[in-house]
Amino acid sequence: MKNISILGSTGSIGTQALAVIRANPHLYQVNALTAQNNAKLLIEQALEFKPELVVITCEDHYQTVKNALPHLQVLCGTDALIAAVELSQTDLVLTAIMGAVGLKPTIAAIKAKKNIGLANKETLVVAGELVMQLAAENGVKIIPVDSEHSAIFQCLVGEELNPIEKIYLTASGGPFRGKDLDFLSTVTKKEALKHPNWVMGAKITIDSASLMNKGLEAIEAKWLFGLATEQIDVIVHPQSIIHSIVQFTDGSMKAQMGLPDMKLPIHYALAYPQRVPSSFERFSFLKYPSLTFSEADTKSFRNLELAFKAMRRGGNMPCIINAANEVVVEAFLKDKIGFLQMSDVIEECMETIKFIAKPTLNNYVETDEQTRIFANQCVTK
Amino acid sequence: MKNISILGSTGSIGTQALAVIRANPHLYQVNALTAQNNAKLLIEQALEFKPELVVITCEDHYQTVKNALPHLQVLCGTDALIAAVELSQTDLVLTAIMGAVGLKPTIAAIKAKKNIGLANKETLVVAGELVMQLAAENGVKIIPVDSEHSAIFQCLVGEELNPIEKIYLTASGGPFRGKDLDFLSTVTKKEALKHPNWVMGAKITIDSASLMNKGLEAIEAKWLFGLATEQIDVIVHPQSIIHSIVQFTDGSMKAQMGLPDMKLPIHYALAYPQRVPSSFERFSFLKYPSLTFSEADTKSFRNLELAFKAMRRGGNMPCIINAANEVVVEAFLKDKIGFLQMSDVIEECMETIKFIAKPTLNNYVETDEQTRIFANQCVTK
Repeated sequence: MKNISILGSTGSIGTQALAVIRANPHLYQVNALTAQNNAKLLIEQALEFKPELVVITCEDHYQTVKNALPHLQVLCGTDALIAAVELSQTDLVLTAIMGAVGLKPTIAAIKAKKNIGLANKETLVVAGELVMQLAAENGVKIIPVDSEHSAIFQCLVGEELNPIEKIYLTASGGPFRGKDLDFLSTVTKKEALKHPNWVMGAKITIDSASLMNKGLEAIEAKWLFGLATEQIDVIVHPQSIIHSIVQFTDGSMKAQMGLPDMKLPIHYALAYPQRVPSSFERFSFLKYPSLTFSEADTKSFRNLELAFKAMRRGGNMPCIINAANEVVVEAFLKDKIGFLQMSDVIEECMETIKFIAKPTLNNYVETDEQTRIFANQCVTK
Repeated sequence: MKNISILGSTGSIGTQALAVIRANPHLYQVNALTAQNNAKLLIEQALEFKPELVVITCEDHYQTVKNALPHLQVLCGTDALIAAVELSQTDLVLTAIMGAVGLKPTIAAIKAKKNIGLANKETLVVAGELVMQLAAENGVKIIPVDSEHSAIFQCLVGEELNPIEKIYLTASGGPFRGKDLDFLSTVTKKEALKHPNWVMGAKITIDSASLMNKGLEAIEAKWLFGLATEQIDVIVHPQSIIHSIVQFTDGSMKAQMGLPDMKLPIHYALAYPQRVPSSFERFSFLKYPSLTFSEADTKSFRNLELAFKAMRRGGNMPCIINAANEVVVEAFLKDKIGFLQMSDVIEECMETIKFIAKPTLNNYVETDEQTRIFANQCVTK
């Protein structure tokens, strides 16, 4: 029986993780559930899975949740996330909360020697060097949940002694694949929220449409797999069947494939190092007679280029683009700025916020705050 | 330093293996070289690699080889292959000889506790159950060299505890992909010898054109990976980039990919469990913008269906089709029979030769002999 604490249980990844756990009650026990403000769903989940601890970070909902769960321990506030990851029984913490707010509880979980199912890519984007070093020091395994990183992680099983030559992260290209700057200048949030293959939360769906998601994934991959920027390539693969590819130094490549369904990498992260049988629909080559590939268009999708630039620069630069991006996506979703302006604001932040080559955890926190303030000024200009 | 004995060093796989060894002199030492009758090349190879033992199986060439290599030990005859695999220093025996004649020395090598680089698929087609059991008893690793089996083997590294749900063997479809029976009734050996992707020996090239190669590979895979017939599927993939795919019980699939170049799986088999850097040309997605897949046409390519029938039946049936196939391919290459007649004769053999459900090694040898006699009668009718 594996004991699992889920940070962000009411989000897209969280609910799918609970679906996997529901289907395998003999394998998994839920230790803690946390949510930001979806009290209703959190209560339902808590009643079903009976965790040791329930956390609602937004204090406004505390009484509602507490009253609905008289027999369970309920806490509120962001600091309560730390309590959720430190529960003594917990074997694996699934970090399915969105944004840079995931960093602190992830670090706490690592220090408490809990293995991490990492669905919060910002943790590595913002502070990858620091987090991976901490994980190594604490003997903690970071198991990625992002489908691309899960693919590479799966391809690397048993290849621990064999250096990676390069990796290819596949990108569906999103809803605007093949479109030019003219087209992109007029797209609406409704169009941007229609992802062709993946069902995901709003933030990541916009990031997929702008290719920022792939840029953040590249940075995540850099830290997760210890790569140089030159070892990471992005290839557009509209069918989203090949989830990513590793090329070894002998020239051989390994790819992980399957239907685009987040339940598969979630299932893998929970079960790792085992594989547990699933009833998910299987991929059929006959339904996908052609898998296609093309170069990513960094002219029209500037976010991807900006992310690679930040990755190459290093230091607090990825932290800057991540914070800037969170602000601009929110602004775009509130119709404050257009699709292309997102890149403009991000670039302005990269040029304006103070660069720090060797940031401490505090530097990251400050960079994040300063960038958000500046980016917010930009989007309300 | 790994000590390697190569059975069949003058053939397609043998010469490519020596090219790999030549490029990595710090890693590999050649212990024994054997050839059937290409004395000239064998002498050249022996002078370059200075093995402990040189074997020419065809006795007519013995004096030529002996005289050319006064400082090396030279033996002749099929039994000398046993001496070549039993050399005390040898770590790995690469079985790159063609046909059922590879069975005996492979068994001898396993009994001498040598790891096997298996490029002689007939060993497993004919006597897979027996050979795999012997390998398990002797703690011997069988590392496949066939690109499809190498692909699956590579995908299974680190997944030892995770059951396979199914495998997909990819098939280029050969030079006659998409052709119907009418067309196939008139094809010449010259056309059949033109493989679109792979450069290989004549026998295997004809087997690729008739899809028998894929049938034999399916049987090889059954034994190598401990599968039931229903767990093996063949999918036509004309570009030969994805070399094969494993599907696990969680629904996740892993594929091994690369340019179609036999040097890669040879290199892997020699280096396993390590991967050794190579200068082979790398695959580029941009040069292969589309990877396509379709069902195998067992109506026009009956050999594939016959092989699956034999695999399902078990016992000495795969031995029968293998022997029959060796005879008909030779007959086709000598213009004695047409392309489609090959299947007719194989089917006749399957119906005529005595079926043995639980054959001993002797039964296999007898089945092989009887089938060859009968098949030869059929092709000279």
